[in-house]
Amino acid sequence: VSYQFDYFRHHRIGLPECIYCEGKSVPILNRMLTELSRKKKCPVLLTRLSKEKRRRIHAPLVRKLDYHEPSGTAFLGGKFPKVPKASVAVVTAGSSDLGVAYEAVRTLDFLGVSARLFADIGVAGLWRLEKNIEAINRHDAIIVIAGMDAAIVSVLGGLTSKPVIAVPTSVGYGTACGGQTALNAMLASCAPGIAAVNIDNGYGAACAAFRVIGRKLSRSPR
Amino acid sequence: VSYQFDYFRHHRIGLPECIYCEGKSVPILNRMLTELSRKKKCPVLLTRLSKEKRRRIHAPLVRKLDYHEPSGTAFLGGKFPKVPKASVAVVTAGSSDLGVAYEAVRTLDFLGVSARLFADIGVAGLWRLEKNIEAINRHDAIIVIAGMDAAIVSVLGGLTSKPVIAVPTSVGYGTACGGQTALNAMLASCAPGIAAVNIDNGYGAACAAFRVIGRKLSRSPR
Amino acid sequence: VSYQFDYFRHHRIGLPECIYCEGKSVPILNRMLTELSRKKKCPVLLTRLSKEKRRRIHAPLVRKLDYHEPSGTAFLGGKFPKVPKASVAVVTAGSSDLGVAYEAVRTLDFLGVSARLFADIGVAGLWRLEKNIEAINRHDAIIVIAGMDAAIVSVLGGLTSKPVIAVPTSVGYGTACGGQTALNAMLASCAPGIAAVNIDNGYGAACAAFRVIGRKLSRSPR
Amino acid sequence: VSYQFDYFRHHRIGLPECIYCEGKSVPILNRMLTELSRKKKCPVLLTRLSKEKRRRIHAPLVRKLDYHEPSGTAFLGGKFPKVPKASVAVVTAGSSDLGVAYEAVRTLDFLGVSARLFADIGVAGLWRLEKNIEAINRHDAIIVIAGMDAAIVSVLGGLTSKPVIAVPTSVGYGTACGGQTALNAMLASCAPGIAAVNIDNGYGAACAAFRVIGRKLSRSPR
Amino acid sequence: VSYQFDYFRHHRIGLPECIYCEGKSVPILNRMLTELSRKKKCPVLLTRLSKEKRRRIHAPLVRKLDYHEPSGTAFLGGKFPKVPKASVAVVTAGSSDLGVAYEAVRTLDFLGVSARLFADIGVAGLWRLEKNIEAINRHDAIIVIAGMDAAIVSVLGGLTSKPVIAVPTSVGYGTACGGQTALNAMLASCAPGIAAVNIDNGYGAACAAFRVIGRKLSRSPR
Amino acid sequence: VSYQFDYFRHHRIGLPECIYCEGKSVPILNRMLTELSRKKKCPVLLTRLSKEKRRRIHAPLVRKLDYHEPSGTAFLGGKFPKVPKASVAVVTAGSSDLGVAYEAVRTLDFLGVSARLFADIGVAGLWRLEKNIEAINRHDAIIVIAGMDAAIVSVLGGLTSKPVIAVPTSVGYGTACGGQTALNAMLASCAPGIAAVNIDNGYGAACAAFRVIGRKLSRSPR
Amino acid sequence: VSYQFDYFRHHRIGLPECIYCEGKSVPILNRMLTELSRKKKCPVLLTRLSKEKRRRIHAPLVRKLDYHEPSGTAFLGGKFPKVPKASVAVVTAGSSDLGVAYEAVRTLDFLGVSARLFADIGVAGLWRLEKNIEAINRHDAIIVIAGMDAAIVSVLGGLTSKPVIAVPTSVGYGTACGGQTALNAMLASCAPGIAAVNIDNGYGAACAAFRVIGRKLSRSPR
Amino acid sequence: VSYQFDYFRHHRIGLPECIYCEGKSVPILNRMLTELSRKKKCPVLLTRLSKEKRRRIHAPLVRKLDYHEPSGTAFLGGKFPKVPKASVAVVTAGSSDLGVAYEAVRTLDFLGVSARLFADIGVAGLWRLEKNIEAINRHDAIIVIAGMDAAIVSVLGGLTSKPVIAVPTSVGYGTACGGQTALNAMLASCAPGIAAVNIDNGYGAACAAFRVIGRKLSRSPR
Repeated sequence: VSYQFDYFRHHRIGLPECIYCEGKSVPILNRMLTELSRKKKCPVLLTRLSKEKRRRIHAPLVRKLDYHEPSGTAFLGGKFPKVPKASVAVVTAGSSDLGVAYEAVRTLDFLGVSARLFADIGVAGLWRLEKNIEAINRHDAIIVIAGMDAAIVSVLGGLTSKPVIAVPTSVGYGTACGGQTALNAMLASCAPGIAAVNIDNGYGAACAAFRVIGRKLSRSPR
Repeated sequence: VSYQFDYFRHHRIGLPECIYCEGKSVPILNRMLTELSRKKKCPVLLTRLSKEKRRRIHAPLVRKLDYHEPSGTAFLGGKFPKVPKASVAVVTAGSSDLGVAYEAVRTLDFLGVSARLFADIGVAGLWRLEKNIEAINRHDAIIVIAGMDAAIVSVLGGLTSKPVIAVPTSVGYGTACGGQTALNAMLASCAPGIAAVNIDNGYGAACAAFRVIGRKLSRSPR
Repeated sequence: VSYQFDYFRHHRIGLPECIYCEGKSVPILNRMLTELSRKKKCPVLLTRLSKEKRRRIHAPLVRKLDYHEPSGTAFLGGKFPKVPKASVAVVTAGSSDLGVAYEAVRTLDFLGVSARLFADIGVAGLWRLEKNIEAINRHDAIIVIAGMDAAIVSVLGGLTSKPVIAVPTSVGYGTACGGQTALNAMLASCAPGIAAVNIDNGYGAACAAFRVIGRKLSRSPR
Repeated sequence: VSYQFDYFRHHRIGLPECIYCEGKSVPILNRMLTELSRKKKCPVLLTRLSKEKRRRIHAPLVRKLDYHEPSGTAFLGGKFPKVPKASVAVVTAGSSDLGVAYEAVRTLDFLGVSARLFADIGVAGLWRLEKNIEAINRHDAIIVIAGMDAAIVSVLGGLTSKPVIAVPTSVGYGTACGGQTALNAMLASCAPGIAAVNIDNGYGAACAAFRVIGRKLSRSPR
Repeated sequence: VSYQFDYFRHHRIGLPECIYCEGKSVPILNRMLTELSRKKKCPVLLTRLSKEKRRRIHAPLVRKLDYHEPSGTAFLGGKFPKVPKASVAVVTAGSSDLGVAYEAVRTLDFLGVSARLFADIGVAGLWRLEKNIEAINRHDAIIVIAGMDAAIVSVLGGLTSKPVIAVPTSVGYGTACGGQTALNAMLASCAPGIAAVNIDNGYGAACAAFRVIGRKLSRSPR
Repeated sequence: VSYQFDYFRHHRIGLPECIYCEGKSVPILNRMLTELSRKKKCPVLLTRLSKEKRRRIHAPLVRKLDYHEPSGTAFLGGKFPKVPKASVAVVTAGSSDLGVAYEAVRTLDFLGVSARLFADIGVAGLWRLEKNIEAINRHDAIIVIAGMDAAIVSVLGGLTSKPVIAVPTSVGYGTACGGQTALNAMLASCAPGIAAVNIDNGYGAACAAFRVIGRKLSRSPR
Repeated sequence: VSYQFDYFRHHRIGLPECIYCEGKSVPILNRMLTELSRKKKCPVLLTRLSKEKRRRIHAPLVRKLDYHEPSGTAFLGGKFPKVPKASVAVVTAGSSDLGVAYEAVRTLDFLGVSARLFADIGVAGLWRLEKNIEAINRHDAIIVIAGMDAAIVSVLGGLTSKPVIAVPTSVGYGTACGGQTALNAMLASCAPGIAAVNIDNGYGAACAAFRVIGRKLSRSPR
Repeated sequence: VSYQFDYFRHHRIGLPECIYCEGKSVPILNRMLTELSRKKKCPVLLTRLSKEKRRRIHAPLVRKLDYHEPSGTAFLGGKFPKVPKASVAVVTAGSSDLGVAYEAVRTLDFLGVSARLFADIGVAGLWRLEKNIEAINRHDAIIVIAGMDAAIVSVLGGLTSKPVIAVPTSVGYGTACGGQTALNAMLASCAPGIAAVNIDNGYGAACAAFRVIGRKLSRSPR
């Protein structure tokens, strides 16, 4: 079997191909990374690469990876040039949502977009959002990450005119339903114009934010 | 078939038997009301009595009912004596939740409890809750009624020390899932100590509030 | 009960308050519209106003409404000034998705944003998308509306760098699950950076597109 | 990232901030506990702290924790002063529900509320409830904990005038659906005025009971 | 299309073929009844025959039907001979469950089995079950019919040694989930040896009771 | 809006475009049929056209339709030439499945394929399948249509070497779950090599059978 | 905490109390078994006792247990006297269902009822059922155990007049849905009078069979 | 317990009995393989045999198995003779779907059918399908394997006249719902005549393809 990488995706849509590692065996990852690092077409992002799986990858390949454990991401072949004058606010409701937030921040970094993280400002202590709303509103797009009831999304959506990309997380138990409740609540939000991505999908939220602020440029890796 | 009314329920638990009309045919309702009005044991509450069904009930019986259309409730044989020095705040997120709110307010009235309705203060316009929170906090218990994302519950729960009884409503479409999303979000709320009742169950919320503020008294009808 | 309109929402977040008519009785709508038309604070959008419900609204109020039946929308007090140099492509997979598309187009019109409708270009006949992709890509944001398998979203997402807002529709039967399958497929799309709104929510997609292209301006009605 | 603890929550609502440990990594817990024990603002409750995770926490911090293994709870900085003349009955249907019951009892202890545990009195052997009902009814509020069919809730609800807070548990298999059946049955109970919290949420039930019996007091730790 | 009636079913398994009318058009029913009444092989039971559908059946055929409206059942060609010395208790939790109970009682009557109906004895008023348990226990099998929380099943199952066939009903709203909660609770009951049939399936419960008490006999119609 | 018919589909894949009428308004259908009958490119199949909707279509258009009420199908512009030496067995478990069976038979007729209907041979009376299995096995493909438990699929699948296309139907109530149980059972069948289409999708089963027996031919309408 | 064993259950309903070990910790089991073996009131059945958990029970207690690994059951204090002239057929569709079948057979043995196991006779090879049906029909009750599509239940139900207790199993993957599909199919079976117990509940099926064939006797342990 | 192998299945339906190893213990597998290898009736296929389970099988039996780890399949007693002039295209959307694809390819090999694998051609990079469609169309049947949104199925279904057997995979997270979304999308596909098998069921897809191209032959093993 030979892999059919979509090498020209970043020329076509501004976003490069990315390797989702969770469903792939180590031998398959080894073969993919070998081919990619040989061709050197463009920087590549790996997501959901656990510490354990990384340890079992062929050593010369591992050395080429810029790995970040809390987010489970790695860069192969550098990253994309900085997008000037654009930044994203990444907001989380609780500290249990940080893993997903790191995936978003690292993906934005890979794509060349500045991001600032506003952690732990759930609405059960409303003053936390009130204290930060002005700073949040200075960014071009807002990624808001929350599990359980996701109530922060509706409150924030009523306090900003900026694009809001909501990411449900699988934090919680019982009626949190592995993030399904947060997702449903975000989509049924009483605040207008909230759009959501898949549960725990920090990567997808970053890509959506990139589409919002980005421009399709012929970009070459640093 | 003869009905086995639980006549002594209000002596046993302070709350009287109640007739849920939705699943019962008109002939069955006629026979029940006939027997109840003959025995005159205590005031009886009817819920989910639609305008159409009420119209088809035997006329002499209808004249004995104190009916309130927006809530679909009726009293037979008066109501219970006033519970002194106790009141409940009934809060709704939107004006589509009013039907359920009326059911709660009327049930409280039947049980002898004062209530004040705070309608239409969803958190997409946060100032509405901020304007009313002090007045809400003056009551002994809070019934909060919301559909869709139910975000108001978590915000309110973080601003009050009073018992909060949350009622999800079936308002909305798609991922609102007929109230299931609101229910799940309420139970997974990041605010501590929120308890919920069934979807659209204004009656149940009023009974739960009565348990909170009430005392089991030998009470006789007015 | 008095309504607590969020009159200043468009000053706060650029998007005005909107009245969702499906869950509201005609008497409630009459009272709301009376108050709104008396205060004349800003243009108001009504959604999900069926032909039947509109017919039962108080006549002097109806005359003030700019009603559009296929989309179920009405404007009260005009619309917002034109947003210059911005437009949105509204794409549908099938002709059964047109009702939702009209809701999106009318909401954009109300908000002052130009839109072009690309109808009926599902991927079972791939040439339809190929024929239109260049024209679609000329817009600032893309709303893509599809039910059932929603396959068009992934294909389109791989052919454009523009922000893509996906709207699942409740078209279909059986495993289409009232739009849940389309929603889930959109969120699990293999194309990067797709964000979705609630099932059948053309209004929400338009608001999300407005956030993407809009700027929060002190705007006064025409 | 710095944590934004809601230090003043107990002044605002009578209930303090609490740390849910299940979704948090050991490094994050270490940093949180260090900051909290340095600031010494008020006693803190930790929930869902497994034996294994506790073992991996920084040793000087562990020594400061008052840990209770069967409930997975720990107190940092003591507990709240005793609430006089108030007590809660904690009732379980089976001995498999004990873990959740212990979480409730320990949380009540932390909040300064007396509790008595009535274990193992499911209604398949009805005499067990009949034997204990009088003693249960002497308390100010009743927390009833049950999985599977949760039938005890309806029977108990028909025998008491006290506030009943129902906690579904994830005990059982097949159609017990991880506690969803118990939750649904509790909310659809034929007994009036039952309110429920999330599945396995002994902590939340204790907080709800505290709201019922508690008063918002300026309280300082023992 | 010609119908392939399973005429010999009652010889094979003691239970005759039955016509479920809900999913069948009136023309199809007319053709079926014509053929059946011409062949006169054995008595036939019709279930779920609504008043409206019955009115539209060919008049000469209607006259041959022994119809009972509250249960929606009809007999064609008489019924089966009496099964001596056997009887079934049919117990319902509420008066909303009566329709299903009537279907069970009529099916038992058709099969020649005596039945006694114990209506309206839900456990929120426990004395009702206590008053009737001795009489219920005198029968050979017990059909217990309940919706919502179905708590009566577990209590009854702990008070009888007789075979218990549980029938969930679709009574209720919200978390009653159209009978799914009652079904799940019955199957997860803490009382041992409860078996259940489909939601609202009074007919099936009667057939299961017949299997329990019946014997396969060469039986000919009265 | 102009429609983008996929006129060349039958040249591309042997199957023509088809109009699913359920989600389309009468004005839209009128415009579509007008355009199609003017262009006369090839025969067109309409599905899910109810008697009521047909009555409201523009009269000159209705006269051009070859309509068949029990299946809800109509042909516009004739049908496709006969496929020689090929036939399909259409098997149903019960007489309530006939509507779906007629949709399959009519679609096959439209596509030029012979079909024979074997109705009402559910496995609760096993002799019915045993009597017909030899005749069924003489066909080139088998469409088997069943609701509820769909047990016939596994039995039949163990008695034939021919391609089996299973169609779940929405017949039944309660745990039949609108056809979801039948679908799940078909896909989890213990017989090897069963493939299924959507619930009630007689049209899709016929198309799948056509793919199996058909050849892509340049075909012109009769 | 002291346990409240329902010691008199077998006097009340003929079936003794049973200990479900899955949800209980080893310390709790030790304490329970110590108390039970000290009181010696009657034989006790333990279910879902894994090899691993058994190994960790206090050694003197383990020696008192009559343990059977494939079924995960153990007897403490012997078993109940033989029920004369009664036997149960235990039928499985596949060899993956054997674990559940063994639980049923061992429970029947504990209760004093003879059982014969008919394994591996799924209907994809119909001759296996045909070969065994006569022998199966010689028993007083039939427990039929099947996962996935559970088609055997409907076929068997059409070939026997005996009471049929159906047990769904969690065997399979995908649309088998952990046994939910088998359960739903059994309850929606086209064969009349099938009753079902919970998924994988061999114990419950045996108890239901005991109710069918048993009589409530004052029984003392062997 | 003795196993009742369906030895004559391949004579009856062309497809042999197969052993699904996931739900079976090692002792059971040992006994089955011993009996099968002694009787030598025909080649046998084992599926879902993990590396770990294989290691624990009795050594003399293991040596008789032709095992292939990536697919988890093994042949006992060789394979079936080659089916001449027939081949199947096996298409996957991503490289995470390869395990399921290998199961299909190995099953086809066992049955004597040629197959060619087209891996990694998801429609987010549409050129990959366009490049391969001509080669795919040269085969007699197409197995298409995809998880998440499964969009490739609808695009491919609109570009081929060949029988399409769709296999959903459990790849992905969140709204991918373990393959349920892919399954639902495939069955609701806008392309006509797609049939699907169970989630991850490469074996079943191969059997369905065999039914399509195969003929029931008296075949003896190589």
